[in-house]
Amino acid sequence: MKPAICEQFGIDFPLFAFSHCRDVVAAVTNAGGFGVLGATAFTPQWLDQELSWIDEHVGGKPYGIDLIVPAKFEGKGEKLAPGELAGRIPDDYRGFVADLLSAHDIEPEASPRTGPSFLSGDTGKDLLEVAFSHPIKLIANALGVPPDYMIDAGREHGVRVAALVGAKEHAVKQVQAGVDLIVAQGTEAGGHCGEVTTLVLIPEVIEAIEGAVPVLGAGGIVTGRQMAAAVAMGADGAWTGSVWLTTEEAETAPHTVQKFLAATSRDTIRSTGRTGKPARQLKSEWTDAWAPNEGGHKTLPLPLQSMLAEPVIRRVDQLAAQGHPGAQALATYFVGQGVGLMNKVKPTREVVREFIEDYLAATERLSNSLPD
Amino acid sequence: MKPAICEQFGIDFPLFAFSHCRDVVAAVTNAGGFGVLGATAFTPQWLDQELSWIDEHVGGKPYGIDLIVPAKFEGKGEKLAPGELAGRIPDDYRGFVADLLSAHDIEPEASPRTGPSFLSGDTGKDLLEVAFSHPIKLIANALGVPPDYMIDAGREHGVRVAALVGAKEHAVKQVQAGVDLIVAQGTEAGGHCGEVTTLVLIPEVIEAIEGAVPVLGAGGIVTGRQMAAAVAMGADGAWTGSVWLTTEEAETAPHTVQKFLAATSRDTIRSTGRTGKPARQLKSEWTDAWAPNEGGHKTLPLPLQSMLAEPVIRRVDQLAAQGHPGAQALATYFVGQGVGLMNKVKPTREVVREFIEDYLAATERLSNSLPD
Repeated sequence: MKPAICEQFGIDFPLFAFSHCRDVVAAVTNAGGFGVLGATAFTPQWLDQELSWIDEHVGGKPYGIDLIVPAKFEGKGEKLAPGELAGRIPDDYRGFVADLLSAHDIEPEASPRTGPSFLSGDTGKDLLEVAFSHPIKLIANALGVPPDYMIDAGREHGVRVAALVGAKEHAVKQVQAGVDLIVAQGTEAGGHCGEVTTLVLIPEVIEAIEGAVPVLGAGGIVTGRQMAAAVAMGADGAWTGSVWLTTEEAETAPHTVQKFLAATSRDTIRSTGRTGKPARQLKSEWTDAWAPNEGGHKTLPLPLQSMLAEPVIRRVDQLAAQGHPGAQALATYFVGQGVGLMNKVKPTREVVREFIEDYLAATERLSNSLPD
Repeated sequence: MKPAICEQFGIDFPLFAFSHCRDVVAAVTNAGGFGVLGATAFTPQWLDQELSWIDEHVGGKPYGIDLIVPAKFEGKGEKLAPGELAGRIPDDYRGFVADLLSAHDIEPEASPRTGPSFLSGDTGKDLLEVAFSHPIKLIANALGVPPDYMIDAGREHGVRVAALVGAKEHAVKQVQAGVDLIVAQGTEAGGHCGEVTTLVLIPEVIEAIEGAVPVLGAGGIVTGRQMAAAVAMGADGAWTGSVWLTTEEAETAPHTVQKFLAATSRDTIRSTGRTGKPARQLKSEWTDAWAPNEGGHKTLPLPLQSMLAEPVIRRVDQLAAQGHPGAQALATYFVGQGVGLMNKVKPTREVVREFIEDYLAATERLSNSLPD
């Protein structure tokens, strides 16, 4: 008999893999896990294209998508004229960024671009509509309780809704709102994260929601032994992200892959410098610049900080790829503390296989730890 | 056959319990675990008395002691006249503390006391001499590689030397220096701690030291399921601290116990406000006052900050016990994120029993997670 979570999602091994790369999503799903496409930055057309590609490659096996529809953000509920939100980015912030670029031998743009406010507003609805036109089996949301329309649409289409949480209080609220799966994600996770560590958060969340829905452990999990640790504590499986960034299939730029392989677990930082909300990423002179405790600049609220930062980060990343030293010092990437255990580029399928083997070895190790 | 770590230390269950309270140490040892007396703040005479009491109560069962002999500190290697170190605390720091107390309706002392610089210097040697006159089985050190005299004396007396580490690089150095046991302690731990979480640190340390010595997992572990998680990841056992603070035997003040029981995992903070080095404790208006990223004051280096802070913290604690509201807002206590899972006062023996039962249940849960 398969574990309940495997029955529910039609998988062999309860390893959920978040990736922006369709190849990784399909490969994990085809290897018996569950691939989840991170689609927040996608346009509806692009999402449709990616999901069609996945459909062609997984032969009906299950996969899902992940969106970020935050519960709270600047401009929420207001009727905004085009450009009005961007107008709320103070001029001195533009100046600060221009100075930071100059200090790194990067010419500031004459009229700096503003990134899309994709973290807010109705884009989520359009993406959802596209997603539901494909045979997805899960839709996940980060940053607060999913909007009612997401939970309702999930019900209607028979698609489970998952929520990422960083505190037990949030898990309780999510269950009350009707989500079907909780991802308890510790502070060691890449991207947006809370303060509580995975080892403490998993038992706290499980105790708090009293078995109402299944719980996946997340945050720092890049090996089967860590997944086994999560399951030993009562989780039904693991949600992973960072580990797929150094797979052969990932679209991670080569210079970024090299940074990941070289990084230790102490090379990441929880910074508000990219989106305005704390998110774990590689330490760099960009994150230093937005570290108030080291004399850095205060950041703007969501989504203003990302509207300001994302176009710059993208440009910096392109220059870094060309070997520009200033850009390489500034470049930063979302990744968790598990990066310290990611030391080799491997095919996705092999990562899944190693997860399973390592999980089995950990299970045996724990069983053998008992006196005969 | 017992696990190797149990054979090495003559115990039934590889649960190591750090406590400043001799009753807890003896009770854990008597219940089949390994009690470790935190003796850093003790005088040699006091330590002798406490260890004699333990000897009378454990009937030859094994226990150990823990000291903090930091590798680096202000004044190290200098010949200092009496009071010279205290003279390095700048006057404006005294003024800042006086203002902080006044703001909380606490009259500053006319001539503020300076705490002992117990974290530095030769006190460690005197304590060691006393310790080795008792049948201790382990001596543990935090904050850097133990001094040669500690490792040599351990060898000579056949007493194993353990070191607490918060980063894999430190573990490698400790093994090179000759320690017999590594405690890999994650950022969720109470007291001094690094940045890497337990779930990431344990596999990193184990990989880095390649089996040279046994490894205990530590940081946030207050239940048997978390201990099982550590062992599933390859640790030989667990090192714990916070969980013993709410036992019946602990000398924790009643108002502090109430704060611990009410606290969630998000009520702790890693702050330099007490010793000058990052240490996890309950958030309070004291830790706020020393949080530079919230406009707080920069802290002094070790041991100056503790010489400044400890007498104040003690006075605040006494006032808080009497119900003084300002003091209650300032009072802080070293404790880990696991405090969120500590919800009831229990006898030490029962905590050990629950650890074992929970560990067994977690082992069974992990075994049952495999498909038949």
